[in-house]
Amino acid sequence: MSGTDETERQARLALSCVVEAGDPEVTGWVAREGAQQVWAELRAGSTESRWNRRAGLFDPDPVLDLADRARVRFVIPGDAEWPDGLSDLALASPVRNHGGMPYGLWLRGAGNLAEISRRSVAVVGSRAATPYGIEVAAHLAAELQDDRWRVISGGAYGIDAAAHRGALAMDAPTVAVLACGPDRPYPTGNQTMFEQIMEHGLLVSEQPPGERPTKPRFLSRNRVIAALSTGAVVVEGALRSGSRSTATWAGRCGRPLMAVPGSVFASESFTPHALIRDQEAVLVADAAQVREVVGAFGDDCLPFERGPERPLDRLDPAEVDVYEALPARGGRSAEELSIRAGLALPTCLSALATLQVAGLVTRTADGRWCLG
Amino acid sequence: MSGTDETERQARLALSCVVEAGDPEVTGWVAREGAQQVWAELRAGSTESRWNRRAGLFDPDPVLDLADRARVRFVIPGDAEWPDGLSDLALASPVRNHGGMPYGLWLRGAGNLAEISRRSVAVVGSRAATPYGIEVAAHLAAELQDDRWRVISGGAYGIDAAAHRGALAMDAPTVAVLACGPDRPYPTGNQTMFEQIMEHGLLVSEQPPGERPTKPRFLSRNRVIAALSTGAVVVEGALRSGSRSTATWAGRCGRPLMAVPGSVFASESFTPHALIRDQEAVLVADAAQVREVVGAFGDDCLPFERGPERPLDRLDPAEVDVYEALPARGGRSAEELSIRAGLALPTCLSALATLQVAGLVTRTADGRWCLG
Repeated sequence: MSGTDETERQARLALSCVVEAGDPEVTGWVAREGAQQVWAELRAGSTESRWNRRAGLFDPDPVLDLADRARVRFVIPGDAEWPDGLSDLALASPVRNHGGMPYGLWLRGAGNLAEISRRSVAVVGSRAATPYGIEVAAHLAAELQDDRWRVISGGAYGIDAAAHRGALAMDAPTVAVLACGPDRPYPTGNQTMFEQIMEHGLLVSEQPPGERPTKPRFLSRNRVIAALSTGAVVVEGALRSGSRSTATWAGRCGRPLMAVPGSVFASESFTPHALIRDQEAVLVADAAQVREVVGAFGDDCLPFERGPERPLDRLDPAEVDVYEALPARGGRSAEELSIRAGLALPTCLSALATLQVAGLVTRTADGRWCLG
Repeated sequence: MSGTDETERQARLALSCVVEAGDPEVTGWVAREGAQQVWAELRAGSTESRWNRRAGLFDPDPVLDLADRARVRFVIPGDAEWPDGLSDLALASPVRNHGGMPYGLWLRGAGNLAEISRRSVAVVGSRAATPYGIEVAAHLAAELQDDRWRVISGGAYGIDAAAHRGALAMDAPTVAVLACGPDRPYPTGNQTMFEQIMEHGLLVSEQPPGERPTKPRFLSRNRVIAALSTGAVVVEGALRSGSRSTATWAGRCGRPLMAVPGSVFASESFTPHALIRDQEAVLVADAAQVREVVGAFGDDCLPFERGPERPLDRLDPAEVDVYEALPARGGRSAEELSIRAGLALPTCLSALATLQVAGLVTRTADGRWCLG
């Protein structure tokens, strides 16, 4: 980092206020020449840019004032709380004219962003979720806390809120990444939830205090959700869903993408099913399967699953053949059974003895053998 | 085929009565040396085999008598009704000690097996199905009839019966492949359905008339379901499900395998979800997706799906930028908007004019611009 830390911080803060978040021209320029250089040029108007005039007029005081009042802090690369994962955005190619690393992030809440995001799963999906989707998201988020996998989402109604609430129900920190300033989190209907999130977790945004959410900002925000997390799970989304954008960003950042299936009759299943069908996402049905995908090999791997044992499981092949040679009703002699099963008589008799001990066959008074 | 057709037919009929279906030793032996040679050796006891004694005692008359009475016919390779797909079983390696081509098939019903199976989908799943699974199977089977994709299943309770019934509801032929003789189809609770199936479709079995279903015969039967079909769809199955075996056989025969997802809270979703997760099966959510998988490229391909158009979709980037630069409440001057959006004033004014025509912005009396 060139210049003093304070100069760097001021340049990044100014960029986050003046340049629309995720403008790939400017994020790329900052990646090449540094935030201080870019800010100086924008401010001076010495390089052609659509942001020159806005930079020339920029006054940080109103933003800092709003930040102060709402206890919002601004963190930049190099700060202890800056999450390593965001660097992956510098290498990812833009999606629909959004891309690059944030200049900084505006944080609000008691959590530590680097700590929470180190072992975290993005759980995202549609606002218009079904009761099934809500239950899946809340259940998954709660179960992930057993192994301290933190949940990151977008704070929206529907799947996002269910995921945050599942984590909150376990008194776990969770992170809501917003498309507006963290001083007035959107939607206001989730205000109580946002306050609970701030107790141990965080509201996070590229947008400075005072900024409202817009459609491009939601798209830009999705890349931050993806990059902050170890992996992403899509729970529900109709044909056209914002979770598609988070899914794409997970791919660009090299994060494993997962999706939870649901009813084929629900339009909300469209996006997860399409992602699975197109092999963009791995199907996950529970937290254990999510942990297997995001976890390090070893500790987080699933045990091999077996069904309950059944009576015939422990029989050897000859015993099974004899058992299956018995008629549904009535009995057969050992000789008949040995012929039907294609086994020598001694083998057949030995098998019958084992089956009798196992309670699978009985011998009638006249020496014939029956099922049960 | 060596010898007369009648001798070949008699040899295959005898083998189908004496040798347990799908015994890979004998099916392999028949593939190498021919049915007549194998039957002659078993009958004479000239080669060591577990089936020698049973072969020596074999009398075809009781079986032929049962077949006559139930109007069951026996078809063999070379017959017009013999389905080509079964040849793939000759090359597939055995699964759990079952494998190889059937010596012949016992058929009952008005359908033509070669015709029905030429364009067919196996729809299989658990007996203990959920109402959701039943609905999926019936719906899928009925919809497949729109393009005359025939349904093959196992005639069991649950998913199998729902699939047959979905096809029957469209007056379409369907095939039930049984693990018992077709003269007394199992389970008897589906008797009415079996009679409906026989009107245009078929009951099919490797088992001669009079034989009861056993566990190994169900496993052996599953390879016939897979080989008869163009592709297979698993609808529901708990952790340990017979549909797993059909799935494995579909793979061995080079048939595409599909699975329908469902609730992650239902144990019946385990097998389809596991098959999808392990990339053994492609996720399918409706008949169109099944047709896309089993159909020839071209006719059966899906159109690209798009969501409904939204107001902002038709705007150019500058118009979107100006739109997004408007505050949630109150207005801004064109000059302010041009600075916030980073656009030249003429570009901004031109964008505002377009937005106004589209009804997305309004101009107040004092010359400021507002949303809506």
